Amino acid sequence: MEIGVIGAGSLGLLYAYYLSKKHKVTLYTKRQEQADQINNLGIQMVKENSYHTANVCATSETIYKESILIITVKQYHLETIINHLKKLSSRTIVFLQNGMGHVSQLASLLHHRVFVGIAEHGALKVNEHIVHHTGEGFTKLALYQDQVEPIHDLSLLRNEQINHFPIVFLPEWEKMLKEKLIVNATINPLTALLRVKNGELLTNKYYKKLFYELFEEVILILGMEDKDKLWDHVCGICTSTSENESSMLRDIHHQRKTEIDSILGYLILNANGKSIPHVSFLFTAIKGIEVR
Amino acid sequence: MEIGVIGAGSLGLLYAYYLSKKHKVTLYTKRQEQADQINNLGIQMVKENSYHTANVCATSETIYKESILIITVKQYHLETIINHLKKLSSRTIVFLQNGMGHVSQLASLLHHRVFVGIAEHGALKVNEHIVHHTGEGFTKLALYQDQVEPIHDLSLLRNEQINHFPIVFLPEWEKMLKEKLIVNATINPLTALLRVKNGELLTNKYYKKLFYELFEEVILILGMEDKDKLWDHVCGICTSTSENESSMLRDIHHQRKTEIDSILGYLILNANGKSIPHVSFLFTAIKGIEVR
Repeated sequence: MEIGVIGAGSLGLLYAYYLSKKHKVTLYTKRQEQADQINNLGIQMVKENSYHTANVCATSETIYKESILIITVKQYHLETIINHLKKLSSRTIVFLQNGMGHVSQLASLLHHRVFVGIAEHGALKVNEHIVHHTGEGFTKLALYQDQVEPIHDLSLLRNEQINHFPIVFLPEWEKMLKEKLIVNATINPLTALLRVKNGELLTNKYYKKLFYELFEEVILILGMEDKDKLWDHVCGICTSTSENESSMLRDIHHQRKTEIDSILGYLILNANGKSIPHVSFLFTAIKGIEVR
Repeated sequence: MEIGVIGAGSLGLLYAYYLSKKHKVTLYTKRQEQADQINNLGIQMVKENSYHTANVCATSETIYKESILIITVKQYHLETIINHLKKLSSRTIVFLQNGMGHVSQLASLLHHRVFVGIAEHGALKVNEHIVHHTGEGFTKLALYQDQVEPIHDLSLLRNEQINHFPIVFLPEWEKMLKEKLIVNATINPLTALLRVKNGELLTNKYYKKLFYELFEEVILILGMEDKDKLWDHVCGICTSTSENESSMLRDIHHQRKTEIDSILGYLILNANGKSIPHVSFLFTAIKGIEVR
Protein backbone atom coordinates (compact mmCIF):
# COMPACT_ATOMS: atom_id res chain seq x y z
CA MET A 1 0.00 0.00 0.00
CA GLU A 2 1.00 3.61 -0.42
CA ILE A 3 0.84 5.41 2.90
CA GLY A 4 1.46 9.10 3.61
CA VAL A 5 2.60 9.97 7.14
CA ILE A 6 1.99 13.65 7.87
CA GLY A 7 4.21 15.17 10.55
CA ALA A 8 7.80 14.15 11.29
CA GLY A 9 8.02 14.49 15.06
CA SER A 10 8.85 11.46 17.19
CA LEU A 11 5.62 9.68 16.30
CA GLY A 12 5.79 10.50 12.58
CA LEU A 13 9.37 9.22 12.32
CA LEU A 14 8.46 6.06 14.23
CA TYR A 15 5.39 5.28 12.12
CA ALA A 16 7.19 6.02 8.86
CA TYR A 17 10.07 3.77 9.93
CA TYR A 18 7.93 0.76 10.87
CA LEU A 19 5.30 1.08 8.12
CA SER A 20 8.05 1.24 5.49
CA LYS A 21 8.87 -2.39 6.33
CA LYS A 22 5.81 -3.52 4.35
CA HIS A 23 4.51 -0.45 2.55
CA LYS A 24 5.60 2.43 0.36
CA VAL A 25 5.72 5.36 2.76
CA THR A 26 6.01 9.08 2.05
CA LEU A 27 6.80 11.22 5.10
CA TYR A 28 5.50 14.80 4.94
CA THR A 29 7.71 17.17 6.92
CA LYS A 30 7.13 20.81 7.77
CA ARG A 31 10.59 21.95 6.63
CA GLN A 32 12.36 20.83 3.44
CA GLU A 33 15.70 20.65 5.31
CA GLN A 34 14.35 17.81 7.41
CA ALA A 35 13.00 16.09 4.29
CA ASP A 36 16.43 16.43 2.66
CA GLN A 37 18.17 14.85 5.64
CA ILE A 38 15.71 11.94 5.67
CA ASN A 39 16.07 11.43 1.91
CA ASN A 40 19.86 11.42 2.25
CA LEU A 41 20.29 9.44 5.46
CA GLY A 42 17.06 7.47 5.86
CA ILE A 43 15.19 7.24 9.14
CA GLN A 44 17.28 5.76 11.91
CA MET A 45 15.40 3.97 14.67
CA VAL A 46 17.27 3.33 17.91
CA LYS A 47 16.12 0.62 20.23
CA GLU A 48 18.02 -0.85 23.15
CA ASN A 49 21.30 0.52 21.83
CA SER A 50 20.99 -0.94 18.34
CA TYR A 51 20.42 1.21 15.26
CA HIS A 52 18.21 0.31 12.32
CA THR A 53 17.75 2.31 9.13
CA ALA A 54 14.85 2.55 6.72
CA ASN A 55 14.84 4.39 3.42
CA VAL A 56 11.79 6.58 3.34
CA CYS A 57 10.83 9.23 0.82
CA ALA A 58 10.24 12.59 2.48
CA THR A 59 9.00 15.94 1.24
CA SER A 60 7.74 19.24 2.58
CA GLU A 61 5.34 19.63 -0.36
CA THR A 62 1.77 18.96 0.67
CA ILE A 63 0.96 16.55 -2.13
CA TYR A 64 -0.92 14.02 -0.02
CA LYS A 65 -1.49 11.69 -2.98
CA GLU A 66 -1.56 8.41 -1.02
CA SER A 67 -4.80 6.53 -0.45
CA ILE A 68 -4.00 6.21 3.25
CA LEU A 69 -2.88 9.25 5.25
CA ILE A 70 -1.77 9.03 8.87
CA ILE A 71 -1.75 12.36 10.68
CA THR A 72 0.78 12.47 13.52
CA VAL A 73 1.15 16.22 14.14
CA LYS A 74 0.17 17.69 17.51
CA GLN A 75 -3.43 18.81 17.79
CA TYR A 76 -2.50 22.48 17.75
CA HIS A 77 -1.01 22.05 14.25
CA LEU A 78 -4.06 20.28 12.79
CA GLU A 79 -6.02 23.25 11.46
CA THR A 80 -4.03 23.88 8.28
CA ILE A 81 -3.84 20.17 7.54
CA ILE A 82 -7.58 19.64 7.98
CA ASN A 83 -8.21 22.49 5.54
CA HIS A 84 -6.05 20.61 3.01
CA LEU A 85 -7.76 17.31 3.69
CA LYS A 86 -11.22 18.79 3.11
CA LYS A 87 -10.30 19.37 -0.54
CA LEU A 88 -8.87 15.90 -1.22
CA SER A 89 -10.74 13.14 -2.99
CA SER A 90 -12.08 10.35 -0.80
CA ARG A 91 -9.52 8.21 0.98
CA THR A 92 -8.63 6.76 4.39
CA ILE A 93 -7.33 9.16 7.01
CA VAL A 94 -6.03 8.21 10.46
CA PHE A 95 -5.74 10.77 13.28
CA LEU A 96 -3.29 9.93 16.09
CA GLN A 97 -3.60 13.04 18.29
CA ASN A 98 -3.83 13.17 22.07
CA GLY A 99 -6.93 14.72 23.58
CA MET A 100 -10.33 15.06 21.96
CA GLY A 101 -10.39 18.71 20.91
CA HIS A 102 -9.93 17.74 17.26
CA VAL A 103 -12.86 15.34 17.11
CA SER A 104 -15.37 18.12 16.44
CA GLN A 105 -13.39 19.11 13.35
CA LEU A 106 -13.67 15.64 11.83
CA ALA A 107 -17.27 16.35 10.80
CA SER A 108 -15.89 18.31 7.84
CA LEU A 109 -14.09 15.21 6.54
CA LEU A 110 -16.95 12.75 6.24
CA HIS A 111 -16.38 12.16 2.52
CA HIS A 112 -13.24 10.31 3.66
CA ARG A 113 -13.07 7.15 5.71
CA VAL A 114 -11.86 8.61 9.01
CA PHE A 115 -10.18 6.67 11.79
CA VAL A 116 -9.10 8.01 15.16
CA GLY A 117 -6.37 6.22 16.98
CA ILE A 118 -4.06 6.22 19.94
CA ALA A 119 -0.38 5.44 19.84
CA GLU A 120 0.87 3.70 22.96
CA HIS A 121 4.49 3.68 21.86
CA GLY A 122 7.17 5.54 23.75
CA ALA A 123 9.19 7.54 21.23
CA LEU A 124 11.75 10.33 21.52
CA LYS A 125 12.96 12.35 18.57
CA VAL A 126 16.75 12.45 18.79
CA ASN A 127 17.27 14.72 15.79
CA GLU A 128 15.78 15.39 12.35
CA HIS A 129 16.06 11.77 11.17
CA ILE A 130 16.69 9.67 14.30
CA VAL A 131 13.97 8.42 16.63
CA HIS A 132 14.44 6.48 19.84
CA HIS A 133 11.79 3.78 20.34
CA THR A 134 11.70 3.78 24.14
CA GLY A 135 8.66 1.58 24.68
CA GLU A 136 6.61 -0.81 22.59
CA GLY A 137 2.86 -0.53 22.65
CA PHE A 138 -0.24 -0.97 20.56
CA THR A 139 -1.62 1.31 17.92
CA LYS A 140 -5.35 1.27 18.57
CA LEU A 141 -7.65 2.41 15.78
CA ALA A 142 -11.39 2.90 15.56
CA LEU A 143 -13.59 4.04 12.72
CA TYR A 144 -15.02 7.50 13.41
CA GLN A 145 -18.03 7.10 11.16
CA ASP A 146 -21.00 5.34 12.65
CA GLN A 147 -21.44 2.68 10.02
CA VAL A 148 -19.95 -0.72 10.67
CA GLU A 149 -17.47 -1.55 7.94
CA PRO A 150 -15.66 -4.80 8.56
CA ILE A 151 -13.52 -4.63 5.42
CA HIS A 152 -11.50 -1.54 4.62
CA ASP A 153 -8.11 -0.40 3.36
CA LEU A 154 -6.61 -0.82 6.80
CA SER A 155 -7.58 -4.47 7.13
CA LEU A 156 -4.23 -5.24 5.59
CA LEU A 157 -2.56 -3.61 8.57
CA ARG A 158 -4.38 -6.00 10.84
CA ASN A 159 -3.70 -9.05 8.74
CA GLU A 160 -0.04 -8.40 8.01
CA GLN A 161 1.32 -7.22 11.32
CA ILE A 162 4.77 -5.67 11.54
CA ASN A 163 7.15 -6.93 14.22
CA HIS A 164 7.26 -4.74 17.37
CA PHE A 165 4.51 -2.58 15.90
CA PRO A 166 1.14 -4.22 16.58
CA ILE A 167 -2.05 -2.61 15.33
CA VAL A 168 -5.49 -3.45 16.70
CA PHE A 169 -8.98 -2.23 15.80
CA LEU A 170 -11.52 -1.33 18.45
CA PRO A 171 -15.27 -0.92 17.99
CA GLU A 172 -15.93 2.28 20.00
CA TRP A 173 -13.84 5.32 19.14
CA GLU A 174 -15.34 7.53 21.86
CA LYS A 175 -14.68 5.09 24.70
CA MET A 176 -11.15 4.53 23.39
CA LEU A 177 -10.33 8.24 23.20
CA LYS A 178 -11.90 8.98 26.57
CA GLU A 179 -9.85 6.30 28.30
CA LYS A 180 -6.70 7.76 26.81
CA LEU A 181 -7.83 11.26 27.71
CA ILE A 182 -8.26 10.27 31.37
CA VAL A 183 -4.64 9.12 31.41
CA ASN A 184 -3.36 12.24 29.66
CA ALA A 185 -5.48 14.60 31.75
CA THR A 186 -4.28 13.21 35.07
CA ILE A 187 -0.71 11.93 34.74
CA ASN A 188 0.52 14.63 32.32
CA PRO A 189 -0.37 17.91 34.03
CA LEU A 190 0.35 16.65 37.55
CA THR A 191 3.79 15.31 36.68
CA ALA A 192 4.51 18.47 34.67
CA LEU A 193 3.57 20.80 37.54
CA LEU A 194 5.24 18.72 40.25
CA ARG A 195 8.19 17.89 37.97
CA VAL A 196 8.30 14.21 38.86
CA LYS A 197 8.40 10.92 36.99
CA ASN A 198 5.08 9.14 36.50
CA GLY A 199 5.63 6.57 39.25
CA GLU A 200 5.89 9.16 41.99
CA LEU A 201 2.17 9.92 41.59
CA LEU A 202 1.56 6.56 43.24
CA THR A 203 4.48 6.25 45.67
CA ASN A 204 4.06 9.71 47.23
CA LYS A 205 0.86 9.56 49.29
CA TYR A 206 0.17 13.28 48.94
CA TYR A 207 0.62 13.23 45.16
CA LYS A 208 -1.59 10.14 45.01
CA LYS A 209 -4.34 12.05 46.80
CA LEU A 210 -4.18 14.86 44.22
CA PHE A 211 -3.99 12.28 41.42
CA TYR A 212 -7.18 10.57 42.61
CA GLU A 213 -9.08 13.81 43.19
CA LEU A 214 -8.11 14.98 39.71
CA PHE A 215 -9.15 11.62 38.24
CA GLU A 216 -12.57 12.01 39.89
CA GLU A 217 -13.07 15.43 38.30
CA VAL A 218 -12.05 14.14 34.87
CA ILE A 219 -14.45 11.20 34.85
CA LEU A 220 -17.18 13.50 36.18
CA ILE A 221 -16.72 15.75 33.13
CA LEU A 222 -16.59 12.79 30.74
CA GLY A 223 -19.65 11.24 32.36
CA MET A 224 -17.97 7.87 32.68
CA GLU A 225 -19.05 5.04 34.92
CA ASP A 226 -17.06 2.10 36.18
CA LYS A 227 -14.86 4.36 38.29
CA ASP A 228 -12.91 1.59 40.03
CA LYS A 229 -12.01 -0.13 36.79
CA LEU A 230 -10.91 3.15 35.19
CA TRP A 231 -8.80 4.03 38.24
CA ASP A 232 -7.12 0.62 38.00
CA HIS A 233 -6.45 1.33 34.32
CA VAL A 234 -4.87 4.72 35.03
CA CYS A 235 -2.80 3.33 37.91
CA GLY A 236 -1.67 0.44 35.73
CA ILE A 237 -0.31 2.84 33.12
CA CYS A 238 1.30 4.96 35.81
CA THR A 239 3.01 1.85 37.16
CA SER A 240 4.16 0.49 33.80
CA THR A 241 5.59 3.92 32.91
CA SER A 242 6.84 4.72 36.41
CA GLU A 243 10.38 5.57 35.29
CA ASN A 244 9.19 7.76 32.41
CA GLU A 245 8.82 11.50 32.25
CA SER A 246 5.41 12.32 30.78
CA SER A 247 5.35 14.09 27.42
CA MET A 248 4.05 17.25 29.10
CA LEU A 249 6.90 17.26 31.63
CA ARG A 250 9.36 16.80 28.76
CA ASP A 251 7.73 19.65 26.84
CA ILE A 252 8.15 21.89 29.89
CA HIS A 253 11.74 20.81 30.47
CA HIS A 254 12.48 21.71 26.85
CA GLN A 255 10.41 24.91 27.01
CA ARG A 256 8.12 23.72 24.24
CA LYS A 257 4.41 24.30 23.86
CA THR A 258 2.44 21.59 25.68
CA GLU A 259 -0.80 19.85 24.73
CA ILE A 260 -2.65 21.37 27.71
CA ASP A 261 -5.28 23.05 25.52
CA SER A 262 -6.32 19.85 23.80
CA ILE A 263 -6.33 17.92 27.09
CA LEU A 264 -7.50 19.99 30.08
CA GLY A 265 -8.68 22.86 27.87
CA TYR A 266 -11.01 20.45 26.09
CA LEU A 267 -12.32 19.16 29.42
CA ILE A 268 -12.99 22.69 30.72
CA LEU A 269 -14.97 23.50 27.57
CA ASN A 270 -17.08 20.40 28.23
CA ALA A 271 -17.53 20.78 31.98
CA ASN A 272 -21.02 22.33 31.75
CA GLY A 273 -20.74 24.04 35.11
CA LYS A 274 -19.52 20.97 37.03
CA SER A 275 -17.16 21.65 39.93
CA ILE A 276 -13.66 20.94 38.63
CA PRO A 277 -11.25 23.02 40.75
CA HIS A 278 -8.14 20.85 40.28
CA VAL A 279 -8.63 20.74 36.50
CA SER A 280 -8.90 24.55 36.49
CA PHE A 281 -5.90 25.02 38.78
CA LEU A 282 -3.70 22.72 36.71
CA PHE A 283 -4.82 24.19 33.40
CA THR A 284 -3.99 27.72 34.56
CA ALA A 285 -0.70 26.69 36.19
CA ILE A 286 0.52 24.88 33.06
CA LYS A 287 -0.51 27.82 30.84
CA GLY A 288 1.51 30.03 33.18
CA ILE A 289 4.55 27.78 32.93
CA GLU A 290 4.22 27.77 29.13
CA VAL A 291 4.30 31.56 28.75
CA ARG A 292 7.40 32.07 30.93
CA MET B 1 17.31 45.38 79.80
CA GLU B 2 18.16 41.70 79.83
CA ILE B 3 16.63 39.99 76.84
CA GLY B 4 16.67 36.28 75.98
CA VAL B 5 16.31 35.40 72.31
CA ILE B 6 15.24 31.78 71.88
CA GLY B 7 16.17 30.17 68.58
CA ALA B 8 19.26 30.95 66.51
CA GLY B 9 18.01 30.67 62.96
CA SER B 10 18.14 33.67 60.63
CA LEU B 11 15.63 35.66 62.68
CA GLY B 12 17.16 34.76 66.05
CA LEU B 13 20.63 35.79 64.89
CA LEU B 14 19.28 39.04 63.46
CA TYR B 15 17.31 39.98 66.58
CA ALA B 16 20.16 39.06 68.92
CA TYR B 17 22.56 41.13 66.81
CA TYR B 18 20.43 44.31 66.74
CA LEU B 19 19.04 44.12 70.27
CA SER B 20 22.57 43.71 71.66
CA LYS B 21 23.24 47.30 70.51
CA LYS B 22 21.26 48.59 73.53
CA HIS B 23 20.53 45.58 75.71
CA LYS B 24 22.21 42.60 77.33
CA VAL B 25 21.19 39.70 75.09
CA THR B 26 21.48 35.97 75.67
CA LEU B 27 20.89 33.84 72.60
CA TYR B 28 19.51 30.34 73.25
CA THR B 29 20.64 27.86 70.60
CA LYS B 30 19.54 24.28 70.06
CA ARG B 31 23.07 22.89 69.80
CA GLN B 32 25.99 23.83 72.05
CA GLU B 33 28.38 23.82 69.03
CA GLN B 34 26.52 26.78 67.60
CA ALA B 35 26.59 28.56 70.99
CA ASP B 36 30.36 27.93 71.20
CA GLN B 37 30.91 29.46 67.76
CA ILE B 38 28.85 32.51 68.63
CA ASN B 39 30.66 32.94 71.97
CA ASN B 40 34.02 32.69 70.21
CA LEU B 41 33.31 34.72 67.08
CA GLY B 42 30.32 36.90 67.92
CA ILE B 43 27.35 37.31 65.60
CA GLN B 44 28.32 38.72 62.23
CA MET B 45 25.66 40.68 60.39
CA VAL B 46 26.20 41.24 56.67
CA LYS B 47 24.42 44.09 54.95
CA GLU B 48 25.16 45.46 51.51
CA ASN B 49 28.60 43.86 51.49
CA SER B 50 29.75 45.26 54.83
CA TYR B 51 30.26 43.10 57.90
CA HIS B 52 29.39 44.09 61.47
CA THR B 53 30.06 42.08 64.59
CA ALA B 54 28.28 41.98 67.94
CA ASN B 55 29.42 40.08 70.99
CA VAL B 56 26.47 38.10 72.27
CA CYS B 57 26.38 35.47 74.97
CA ALA B 58 24.98 32.18 73.67
CA THR B 59 24.08 28.89 75.34
CA SER B 60 22.18 25.72 74.61
CA GLU B 61 21.08 25.44 78.25
CA THR B 62 17.43 26.35 78.66
CA ILE B 63 17.91 28.77 81.56
CA TYR B 64 15.55 31.45 80.29
CA LYS B 65 16.31 33.76 83.23
CA GLU B 66 15.72 37.08 81.42
CA SER B 67 12.63 39.17 82.10
CA ILE B 68 11.97 39.50 78.38
CA LEU B 69 12.04 36.44 76.14
CA ILE B 70 11.71 36.66 72.36
CA ILE B 71 10.80 33.37 70.71
CA THR B 72 12.05 33.13 67.11
CA VAL B 73 11.91 29.37 66.43
CA LYS B 74 9.63 28.03 63.73
CA GLN B 75 6.14 27.17 64.85
CA TYR B 76 6.78 23.43 64.55
CA HIS B 77 9.49 23.73 67.21
CA LEU B 78 7.36 25.64 69.71
CA GLU B 79 5.85 22.80 71.70
CA THR B 80 8.88 21.99 73.91
CA ILE B 81 9.56 25.66 74.47
CA ILE B 82 5.98 26.43 75.48
CA ASN B 83 6.15 23.58 78.01
CA HIS B 84 9.23 25.28 79.51
CA LEU B 85 7.60 28.68 79.51
CA LYS B 86 4.55 27.41 81.38
CA LYS B 87 6.72 26.71 84.41
CA LEU B 88 8.54 30.07 84.45
CA SER B 89 7.70 32.93 86.79
CA SER B 90 5.80 35.82 85.23
CA ARG B 91 7.63 37.83 82.61
CA THR B 92 7.24 39.29 79.10
CA ILE B 93 7.27 36.84 76.19
CA VAL B 94 7.21 37.77 72.50
CA PHE B 95 6.25 35.26 69.81
CA LEU B 96 7.49 35.98 66.29
CA GLN B 97 6.16 32.93 64.38
CA ASN B 98 4.50 32.89 61.00
CA GLY B 99 0.98 31.59 60.78
CA MET B 100 -1.57 31.42 63.59
CA GLY B 101 -1.47 27.78 64.61
CA HIS B 102 0.41 28.64 67.80
CA VAL B 103 -2.08 31.22 69.03
CA SER B 104 -4.32 28.61 70.64
CA GLN B 105 -1.36 27.42 72.74
CA LEU B 106 -0.82 30.88 74.24
CA ALA B 107 -3.79 30.38 76.56
CA SER B 108 -1.53 28.28 78.78
CA LEU B 109 0.83 31.25 79.28
CA LEU B 110 -1.54 33.86 80.62
CA HIS B 111 0.45 34.37 83.83
CA HIS B 112 3.03 36.02 81.56
CA ARG B 113 2.61 39.21 79.58
CA VAL B 114 2.38 37.73 76.06
CA PHE B 115 3.00 39.61 72.84
CA VAL B 116 2.62 38.26 69.34
CA GLY B 117 4.54 39.89 66.58
CA ILE B 118 5.55 39.80 62.97
CA ALA B 119 9.03 40.34 61.66
CA GLU B 120 9.12 42.04 58.29
CA HIS B 121 12.89 41.82 57.91
CA GLY B 122 14.52 39.83 55.18
CA ALA B 123 17.19 37.64 56.74
CA LEU B 124 19.26 34.71 55.51
CA LYS B 125 21.36 32.55 57.80
CA VAL B 126 24.75 32.21 56.13
CA ASN B 127 26.23 29.84 58.73
CA GLU B 128 26.13 29.21 62.50
CA HIS B 129 27.05 32.78 63.44
CA ILE B 130 26.60 34.88 60.30
CA VAL B 131 23.29 36.37 59.17
CA HIS B 132 22.62 38.32 55.98
CA HIS B 133 20.17 41.21 56.53
CA THR B 134 18.65 41.28 53.06
CA GLY B 135 15.78 43.69 53.71
CA GLU B 136 14.85 46.17 56.41
CA GLY B 137 11.35 46.15 57.79
CA PHE B 138 9.33 46.75 60.90
CA THR B 139 8.90 44.50 63.86
CA LYS B 140 5.21 44.81 64.68
CA LEU B 141 4.08 43.77 68.15
CA ALA B 142 0.68 43.51 69.79
CA LEU B 143 -0.33 42.45 73.26
CA TYR B 144 -2.12 39.12 73.20
CA GLN B 145 -4.03 39.68 76.45
CA ASP B 146 -7.21 41.65 76.18
CA GLN B 147 -6.44 44.30 78.77
CA VAL B 148 -5.08 47.59 77.53
CA GLU B 149 -1.70 48.20 79.13
CA PRO B 150 -0.02 51.32 77.82
CA ILE B 151 3.13 50.96 79.90
CA HIS B 152 5.10 47.74 79.91
CA ASP B 153 8.62 46.37 79.77
CA LEU B 154 8.70 46.75 76.03
CA SER B 155 7.95 50.48 76.07
CA LEU B 156 11.67 50.99 76.21
CA LEU B 157 11.96 49.29 72.83
CA ARG B 158 9.57 51.84 71.41
CA ASN B 159 11.20 54.80 73.06
CA GLU B 160 14.81 53.93 72.34
CA GLN B 161 14.72 52.71 68.77
CA ILE B 162 17.71 50.93 67.27
CA ASN B 163 18.96 52.09 63.86
CA HIS B 164 17.72 49.96 60.92
CA PHE B 165 15.59 47.94 63.35
CA PRO B 166 12.32 49.82 63.99
CA ILE B 167 9.74 48.41 66.38
CA VAL B 168 6.10 49.47 66.43
CA PHE B 169 3.17 48.47 68.60
CA LEU B 170 -0.25 47.80 67.13
CA PRO B 171 -3.56 47.59 68.98
CA GLU B 172 -5.15 44.48 67.41
CA TRP B 173 -3.09 41.30 67.42
CA GLU B 174 -5.65 39.25 65.50
CA LYS B 175 -5.98 41.68 62.61
CA MET B 176 -2.19 42.00 62.47
CA LEU B 177 -1.59 38.24 62.36
CA LYS B 178 -4.37 37.66 59.88
CA GLU B 179 -2.99 40.22 57.46
CA LYS B 180 0.41 38.56 57.65
CA LEU B 181 -1.21 35.15 57.28
CA ILE B 182 -2.93 36.21 54.05
CA VAL B 183 0.47 37.14 52.63
CA ASN B 184 2.11 33.92 53.79
CA ALA B 185 -0.80 31.73 52.69
CA THR B 186 -0.85 33.08 49.15
CA ILE B 187 2.65 34.13 48.08
CA ASN B 188 4.53 31.34 49.86
CA PRO B 189 2.85 28.14 48.67
CA LEU B 190 2.26 29.40 45.12
CA THR B 191 5.84 30.51 44.61
CA ALA B 192 7.07 27.28 46.22
CA LEU B 193 4.98 25.06 43.95
CA LEU B 194 5.62 27.07 40.78
CA ARG B 195 9.27 27.68 41.74
CA VAL B 196 9.24 31.35 40.85
CA LYS B 197 10.25 34.61 42.51
CA ASN B 198 7.48 36.60 44.21
CA GLY B 199 7.12 39.17 41.45
CA GLU B 200 6.14 36.58 38.84
CA LEU B 201 2.81 36.04 40.60
CA LEU B 202 1.83 39.46 39.27
CA THR B 203 3.64 39.63 35.93
CA ASN B 204 2.44 36.22 34.68
CA LYS B 205 -1.30 36.60 33.99
CA TYR B 206 -2.02 32.93 34.61
CA TYR B 207 -0.18 32.90 37.93
CA LYS B 208 -1.96 36.12 38.90
CA LYS B 209 -5.31 34.41 38.31
CA LEU B 210 -4.35 31.56 40.66
CA PHE B 211 -2.96 34.09 43.15
CA TYR B 212 -6.24 36.02 43.25
CA GLU B 213 -8.41 32.91 43.47
CA LEU B 214 -6.27 31.62 46.33
CA PHE B 215 -6.46 35.02 48.05
CA GLU B 216 -10.26 34.87 47.85
CA GLU B 217 -10.33 31.47 49.53
CA VAL B 218 -8.00 32.64 52.30
CA ILE B 219 -10.03 35.72 53.21
CA LEU B 220 -13.19 33.61 53.05
CA ILE B 221 -11.76 31.31 55.71
CA LEU B 222 -10.53 34.20 57.84
CA GLY B 223 -13.88 35.99 57.49
CA MET B 224 -12.23 39.24 56.53
CA GLU B 225 -13.90 42.16 54.83
CA ASP B 226 -12.36 45.01 52.87
CA LYS B 227 -11.29 42.63 50.12
CA ASP B 228 -9.98 45.28 47.72
CA LYS B 229 -7.79 46.91 50.37
CA LEU B 230 -6.38 43.54 51.44
CA TRP B 231 -5.66 42.59 47.82
CA ASP B 232 -3.80 45.89 47.37
CA HIS B 233 -1.84 45.07 50.54
CA VAL B 234 -0.85 41.59 49.31
CA CYS B 235 0.04 42.90 45.84
CA GLY B 236 2.11 45.68 47.41
CA ILE B 237 4.20 43.16 49.33
CA CYS B 238 4.52 40.99 46.24
CA THR B 239 5.79 43.99 44.30
CA SER B 240 8.22 45.24 46.96
CA THR B 241 9.67 41.71 47.28
CA SER B 242 9.42 40.89 43.57
CA GLU B 243 13.05 39.80 43.25
CA ASN B 244 12.92 37.64 46.41
CA GLU B 245 12.41 33.94 46.74
CA SER B 246 9.78 33.32 49.40
CA SER B 247 10.89 31.50 52.54
CA MET B 248 8.86 28.46 51.52
CA LEU B 249 10.52 28.31 48.11
CA ARG B 250 13.90 28.57 49.81
CA ASP B 251 12.93 25.80 52.24
CA ILE B 252 12.03 23.59 49.30
CA HIS B 253 15.20 24.43 47.37
CA HIS B 254 17.21 23.46 50.45
CA GLN B 255 15.03 20.38 51.11
CA ARG B 256 14.04 21.68 54.54
CA LYS B 257 10.72 21.32 56.31
CA THR B 258 8.39 24.17 55.35
CA GLU B 259 5.87 26.08 57.47
CA ILE B 260 2.95 24.73 55.42
CA ASP B 261 1.25 23.19 58.46
CA SER B 262 1.11 26.43 60.41
CA ILE B 263 -0.01 28.40 57.36
CA LEU B 264 -2.34 26.44 55.06
CA GLY B 265 -2.77 23.62 57.59
CA TYR B 266 -4.12 26.15 60.10
CA LEU B 267 -6.52 27.56 57.49
CA ILE B 268 -7.83 24.10 56.58
CA LEU B 269 -8.52 23.38 60.26
CA ASN B 270 -10.51 26.60 60.42
CA ALA B 271 -12.37 26.31 57.12
CA ASN B 272 -15.59 24.97 58.68
CA GLY B 273 -16.72 23.30 55.49
CA LYS B 274 -16.14 26.30 53.23
CA SER B 275 -15.11 25.52 49.65
CA ILE B 276 -11.34 26.00 49.50
CA PRO B 277 -10.06 23.81 46.65
CA HIS B 278 -6.87 25.78 45.90
CA VAL B 279 -5.89 25.87 49.57
CA SER B 280 -6.37 22.08 49.71
CA PHE B 281 -4.50 21.46 46.47
CA LEU B 282 -1.53 23.59 47.51
CA PHE B 283 -1.40 22.14 51.03
CA THR B 284 -1.30 18.58 49.67
CA ALA B 285 1.18 19.43 46.90
CA ILE B 286 3.62 21.12 49.30
CA LYS B 287 3.32 18.22 51.78
CA GLY B 288 4.16 15.92 48.89
CA ILE B 289 7.20 17.96 47.92
CA GLU B 290 8.33 17.94 51.56
CA VAL B 291 8.32 14.17 51.93
CA ARG B 292 10.29 13.51 48.74
